[in-house]
Amino acid sequence: MVMGGKGKSYSWLSLCLLGSTIVNIYFLSDLYIDGKGKGKGKGKVSWGEEGAAKAEEVASIYCSNHGRAYLDGVIGEDGKPVCECHTCYGGSDCSLLSPHCAADADRSLSLSLLCVCSGDPLFLEPFWMHHASSSAVLISGWHRMSYNFPGPTAISEVLDSHIRRLHHVAKNALTEGKYIVFGGGSTQLLNAAVYALSANLSSPASVVAAVPSYPLYKTQTDFFQNKNYAFKGDASLMSNASYANTNVIEFVTSPNNPDGNLKEAVCKGPCVRAIYDHAYFWPHFTAIPSPADEDVMIFTMSKLTGHAGSRFGWALVKDVEVYYNMMAYIIAAEMGISRETQLRALQLMKAILRGDGKEIFDYAFEKMSDRWGKLSRIFSKSKRFSIQEIPPLYCNFFDKVRGPSPGYAWVKCEREEDLDCTRVLREANIIGRAGSRFSVDDRHVRLSLLKGDDDFNLLLNRLEKLVDEEGGPEAVSGF
Amino acid sequence: MVMGGKGKSYSWLSLCLLGSTIVNIYFLSDLYIDGKGKGKGKGKVSWGEEGAAKAEEVASIYCSNHGRAYLDGVIGEDGKPVCECHTCYGGSDCSLLSPHCAADADRSLSLSLLCVCSGDPLFLEPFWMHHASSSAVLISGWHRMSYNFPGPTAISEVLDSHIRRLHHVAKNALTEGKYIVFGGGSTQLLNAAVYALSANLSSPASVVAAVPSYPLYKTQTDFFQNKNYAFKGDASLMSNASYANTNVIEFVTSPNNPDGNLKEAVCKGPCVRAIYDHAYFWPHFTAIPSPADEDVMIFTMSKLTGHAGSRFGWALVKDVEVYYNMMAYIIAAEMGISRETQLRALQLMKAILRGDGKEIFDYAFEKMSDRWGKLSRIFSKSKRFSIQEIPPLYCNFFDKVRGPSPGYAWVKCEREEDLDCTRVLREANIIGRAGSRFSVDDRHVRLSLLKGDDDFNLLLNRLEKLVDEEGGPEAVSGF
Repeated sequence: MVMGGKGKSYSWLSLCLLGSTIVNIYFLSDLYIDGKGKGKGKGKVSWGEEGAAKAEEVASIYCSNHGRAYLDGVIGEDGKPVCECHTCYGGSDCSLLSPHCAADADRSLSLSLLCVCSGDPLFLEPFWMHHASSSAVLISGWHRMSYNFPGPTAISEVLDSHIRRLHHVAKNALTEGKYIVFGGGSTQLLNAAVYALSANLSSPASVVAAVPSYPLYKTQTDFFQNKNYAFKGDASLMSNASYANTNVIEFVTSPNNPDGNLKEAVCKGPCVRAIYDHAYFWPHFTAIPSPADEDVMIFTMSKLTGHAGSRFGWALVKDVEVYYNMMAYIIAAEMGISRETQLRALQLMKAILRGDGKEIFDYAFEKMSDRWGKLSRIFSKSKRFSIQEIPPLYCNFFDKVRGPSPGYAWVKCEREEDLDCTRVLREANIIGRAGSRFSVDDRHVRLSLLKGDDDFNLLLNRLEKLVDEEGGPEAVSGF
Repeated sequence: MVMGGKGKSYSWLSLCLLGSTIVNIYFLSDLYIDGKGKGKGKGKVSWGEEGAAKAEEVASIYCSNHGRAYLDGVIGEDGKPVCECHTCYGGSDCSLLSPHCAADADRSLSLSLLCVCSGDPLFLEPFWMHHASSSAVLISGWHRMSYNFPGPTAISEVLDSHIRRLHHVAKNALTEGKYIVFGGGSTQLLNAAVYALSANLSSPASVVAAVPSYPLYKTQTDFFQNKNYAFKGDASLMSNASYANTNVIEFVTSPNNPDGNLKEAVCKGPCVRAIYDHAYFWPHFTAIPSPADEDVMIFTMSKLTGHAGSRFGWALVKDVEVYYNMMAYIIAAEMGISRETQLRALQLMKAILRGDGKEIFDYAFEKMSDRWGKLSRIFSKSKRFSIQEIPPLYCNFFDKVRGPSPGYAWVKCEREEDLDCTRVLREANIIGRAGSRFSVDDRHVRLSLLKGDDDFNLLLNRLEKLVDEEGGPEAVSGF
């Protein structure tokens, strides 16, 4: 654009600014003032208005973009839900950063009793805020009060079909001819699958997973003290001979948690049955070489849409007997999955599937890829630390070779004396999860890359500082 | 920084304009692109409108008051969710009654694999339709994506406090000094409690319940094949001697399912621990002689608000170790209860607690009391069938002596030859649940009184016909 003198530009700009500001005020009033019930009653909704207005009012509470207020949050002195601040932020509007607070790239579930915590996938929150309208769902007071769904399966048929469509778009799993079981997150389905695969065996099954492996497999399998199965550790340590005559159930996490690499079952043989944990098998986190077609595959909304709090997962199951046993498990455990959860899952899937359904995958891949790039650049300057290598691979979804975008960095302390890598990072104010939790040595630490921008940026800053200081006097003396 | 001159203002303005424009684009995209251009800024709500309008649209689908359309129902040819008709009603608008269809006063969960079905409490649906505005909740796309709740317990503090307030209003349980555990219905908490009470024992615990007893206790305890406990049947059959040296866990259902009578633990002794299943311990179904104050008490939203589909229950627990073990169970099973479910439970409790919070109890008692009156009148004419007696009792909530209003009729076939009472009723087109399911003889049948009006009225008609025919030639020949 060619513009005249400065004076002219100045007036032009002023006018634009004025216009733009007026438009802003209009929208702001729409979102925030009208949202507080000050409107003129000309809306299109009646009994749903109170619920919608309440949700909008809470959404408009200002938390400095470093926190969020929720409809069911603790009520503050002003009668409104208080801001719940991101790690390291505080104050009533989350504007205060604690400069020495630790960058938490580990725990997400604060219950210390049994830490089965996983990555808290808040990196997708901006996506949902952008799609506010299409993703909001209003639940009426009388929505599905019954135990029943129509049909024989006690699950939402419509949600079932949306899940199948989503796999079709993501090109990550074949659903035809497979049964779907809903569960309370993948967590519940993992145990339901072990239960189902160990039912009616002549002797108890050995449950294994190749290390480094997701700690929950062991924790959960041990926890339930079931007579039909027991956790037996590393799949790689099972010799062919030992599982020729033993019933083996192998958890195969692909891509793997913690290291992000695609995996196949290690154990083979007539008595081996595999449970494919495909929580991260989405274009967000990995190349999809081809659609998966295993006997038992488990997915979770947590890592697809980022709704970890919803506790919604599903299993794709080929064998009808295994399907029946898994369904029976869910029924015996809690008579099926909450209808609210199923309704919201459906709403989120509907929102995703608008248009060609690819936007969320593009968004998530971009974001995770960008994060990995930033992290890699920091670690490339380091001799003290390394991160896992994930080779570029052809991806069925993007129809091209693509680079890595894993959910976790699997960091290794390379110096001989740094046996406890978690401690080394902890001293730099970074909280990671120790390798021993994944059944390998403590030279390794897992850092979550799934969290919100505040957490990730803090992690980057701390890592950068740590790596920059490698050349310092303390670091040098370490060699 | 001090700035002067037009040049600086120019840069400043440009920056403002850029910022302002970005904000505009954000709002525009949110309101108009995502919202499909529905937001004209005249309603009281903006991004919540689409969700609210959809819910209202579905609620307005006409199903002749013999069915309901739901937001996640199967889509019909007209592009809208189809009517889901009550038992015995059909047609696209549920207007067709099948005259010979059976009155189903039994099953509510159609999964035949493992029938742990319970009463489907649709009798409260009209209450919620009447309170449409206060009970509707809009869930934003970004609501509680995290695993975390603030605080150490991974549950909603606000919901916790509402539950305590509700018990205070209902005067049915003392909550002070007790911990609350949330579960996937009472179903999940029953097993969590058995798990918690049997942890760290020197020998496996014997799980018992006095007959007639709710079938789930046995089904579920057997199902999970845990090393630490096993179901051992009727509590009354355990002699004092046998549980002097045995670890016993007794389920005490009070009021009892199926017969509605208040109960106390049968087993006593230092190694006995009781789980009080108080699902029906609300003014709806029973007199409340005094607030309950047991060590482990389990409640469920299903029988309080009628939301069986929500799968939300809670336990009140005195002992901190038992509490920790139960929390650990819920975490290991599925990492806590769905945040959607918790939010909706909160909304329903908020709706209940408006005013003095007593309306739902008055409504539910009236309804159940009326149903029991109608049923009693029919059975009073019969010599072939009898129903349980429930004595009038002083009720702490109503502060007066009140009559019965149980959730189930516990029918007995009095004729010597009517050994299979379920079959006798089945021949009259009435489906009940056999006594053997409750570990007693099949002279008994349980009929649910918790269903919707259509189901209950059909049941009444069929029963009336059956009793009226007692004097007929076939009936007389039976003596």
